[in-house]
Amino acid sequence: MHLYPDNRDVFEQITVLAPGLLGASVGMAVAKHSPSRKIHVWARRAETRVQCELLEWCHAVHSAAEEAVKGADLVIICSPVETIAPLVERIAEHLKEGAIVTDVGSTKSLLCHNAKAAMPAHAFFVGSHPMAGSEKSGLEYADRDLFKQRPCFVTPLPETPETVTEQVVRFWMELGMQVCTISPETHDEIVAYISHLPHILASTLCAALQKKDSKWRHFAGAGLRDTTRIASGSPILWKSILEQNREEILRALDTFEDEIHHFRSALANREWFEVSNLLEHGKHYRDSLSPDATEQ
Amino acid sequence: MHLYPDNRDVFEQITVLAPGLLGASVGMAVAKHSPSRKIHVWARRAETRVQCELLEWCHAVHSAAEEAVKGADLVIICSPVETIAPLVERIAEHLKEGAIVTDVGSTKSLLCHNAKAAMPAHAFFVGSHPMAGSEKSGLEYADRDLFKQRPCFVTPLPETPETVTEQVVRFWMELGMQVCTISPETHDEIVAYISHLPHILASTLCAALQKKDSKWRHFAGAGLRDTTRIASGSPILWKSILEQNREEILRALDTFEDEIHHFRSALANREWFEVSNLLEHGKHYRDSLSPDATEQ
Repeated sequence: MHLYPDNRDVFEQITVLAPGLLGASVGMAVAKHSPSRKIHVWARRAETRVQCELLEWCHAVHSAAEEAVKGADLVIICSPVETIAPLVERIAEHLKEGAIVTDVGSTKSLLCHNAKAAMPAHAFFVGSHPMAGSEKSGLEYADRDLFKQRPCFVTPLPETPETVTEQVVRFWMELGMQVCTISPETHDEIVAYISHLPHILASTLCAALQKKDSKWRHFAGAGLRDTTRIASGSPILWKSILEQNREEILRALDTFEDEIHHFRSALANREWFEVSNLLEHGKHYRDSLSPDATEQ
Repeated sequence: MHLYPDNRDVFEQITVLAPGLLGASVGMAVAKHSPSRKIHVWARRAETRVQCELLEWCHAVHSAAEEAVKGADLVIICSPVETIAPLVERIAEHLKEGAIVTDVGSTKSLLCHNAKAAMPAHAFFVGSHPMAGSEKSGLEYADRDLFKQRPCFVTPLPETPETVTEQVVRFWMELGMQVCTISPETHDEIVAYISHLPHILASTLCAALQKKDSKWRHFAGAGLRDTTRIASGSPILWKSILEQNREEILRALDTFEDEIHHFRSALANREWFEVSNLLEHGKHYRDSLSPDATEQ
């Protein structure tokens, strides 16, 4: 836990806006690592608020976001990407002096600039992207260990004070994350390749298979299952992500289309050296990824 | 266990040629389900033979394939796809009257026709493709439960006697597999889509990422790991598979390229209804796959 010189916790009160899989996991993880912190939540739906009232980590449930952020040292917005900047706008006036607002959205550039513009002068916004999650969504899949050993981006703008960035970095590190600070623009380029492109390939492969004989699905092996698992993710959430990061994704798609086109030519022309080369490069890259918690 | 009317086991002696991950898993699974069967093996490398001598399920180890198949009721060839028909040619004369030869290769059409042509009149070949395995290869990763609940194709030719097909179907079912008989040509079409295409996408994605900043690999989340796991498979084995099933794979690649091109256009032109549609179709297909043993 990070303390002020007088031993007071920097983030005594934390407010989670829109606790779904990620927001509720943040709440559970904070309760585990820093049990003295008070956690407030706001949920748009009445049924989620009722669920939240039953959760041990949840100290106060609010029906208005404006109320929920009052007195909060840290506000974490966990709603879908396109709703984050509008939410910042809504809570801006109600933030206490020196409050820090962050989020868990999968895209950063557009969002961070809009959120920053919506912030009042007396509080700070710095974007976060904890790369944890699942193809599942919803409070009921929350997991207090979701963030352990996972990568997390924190994306300050040039004008973000260093101490603000540092406090948010420390917050995610306390939950066990491996944090990297980076500009929102570089973040969006990286995730276009390592997260959004793989999602598009999984979805596109499934959409192509959907058109073939429906009996074929009974023959799906572990390879197809793993390759396509993320295609089960929420189309609504993913449409927003693709919309927010459209330009970077188009560039990543071009790179991929070049590669697959090159591969297809090699196969069509029986250029077996080229085919082997691509397989070797692919294996080399995959083997170089450090093992995942679930692979160990 | 399948018995003759006089209660004698149809497959008293089984010979596994080239016990790697799959062959050794067959041996272990047979020893578990039908402990009275004798299992002989032949391995090309001396070091594998030494390893095999230490394995409980392995009753005899041979340094010549011709010797190993003598007296066998069932021969299972587990070597890479391009070596299967040549091995059939080599053992043909040494097979006993009525012996059945099968394999575990990932492609079937070319292989089954070549293997059939190499067989003597007094024995039978029918192809198999147990869809089990791993991105790992080698005896040391063998697992007696590898075949449990997994799909398996058995691919008779029109001239294959029904009783031969039936005995091979029964053999895989006894190891817990869900067996489907199908022509070698249809098999190759199906696996081009559900197995070879996903492998190519995983390899191609990795090959494309290999060209980007090498630090990006530290940010790989579970999505990228799952999507690309199979790219760690042996490039040598996969080059052979692609070679043997080249035409069907080219057709599958065309279907995929159409789909991704369609997606790219929709994203480029901000046709969000189309983008959502593709994500929905992809999710619908993925959700319709019955849960895998490892997903339960």
